[in-house]
Amino acid sequence: MADFQAVADQFVQFYYQTFDENRQNLATLYRDNSMLTFENTPIQGAAGIVEKLSSLPFQKVLHKWSTADAQPSSEGGGILVMVTGALLVDEEQKPMSYTQTFQLLPDGQGSYYVFNDIFRLVYPAA
Amino acid sequence: MADFQAVADQFVQFYYQTFDENRQNLATLYRDNSMLTFENTPIQGAAGIVEKLSSLPFQKVLHKWSTADAQPSSEGGGILVMVTGALLVDEEQKPMSYTQTFQLLPDGQGSYYVFNDIFRLVYPAA
Repeated sequence: MADFQAVADQFVQFYYQTFDENRQNLATLYRDNSMLTFENTPIQGAAGIVEKLSSLPFQKVLHKWSTADAQPSSEGGGILVMVTGALLVDEEQKPMSYTQTFQLLPDGQGSYYVFNDIFRLVYPAA
Repeated sequence: MADFQAVADQFVQFYYQTFDENRQNLATLYRDNSMLTFENTPIQGAAGIVEKLSSLPFQKVLHKWSTADAQPSSEGGGILVMVTGALLVDEEQKPMSYTQTFQLLPDGQGSYYVFNDIFRLVYPAA
């Protein structure tokens, strides 16, 4: 397995574990130039992104990701990751499918931060 | 609407129209350094990518994309696009959900080519 795929797997594991435990702690993964497009709503910057994620109208959430495909995204060491999975909120018994794409960029200190983040629920095809 | 979103919309419209009419013609959208990850299979280079897409085991395909969210992906003018939609193959009546992420890079001649391409079918959450 290429190195970028290992980084992507580790990131995705950490991201959703953190999201499901305490969304506020995601702040360390974003920077001021990070972008989130959440169900068509664009937000820029770590503070706004975490405020958005923290204000989503559920108390409990559980992400079960099933695929995370990675590719190198730039000569500078960026990594593109596309995730598909399912999530459960609160006491809801029926999971919803979702897809999420991240571009991770090196943070200059041996780790990565989220530069691009796009999230969509995926509804069953009619 | 920001310019990158307009480019993304135009690209997605053209990409799926070309895919559904004649997959061989997608060759002009890729370069030798382009990457495709198609249902977990990685392929590099325009020739291999088009060979893969052309050999998919269906004669007819119709993509109906429903969302295409775009963000700037690099200082060099790259554009990240995440698509969700449904597709129908051959005489099948039941559409399948899919998601696909592209990174478009400027080709130096006023247009763009596909540098990253990741495709996954999305199955209903169990």
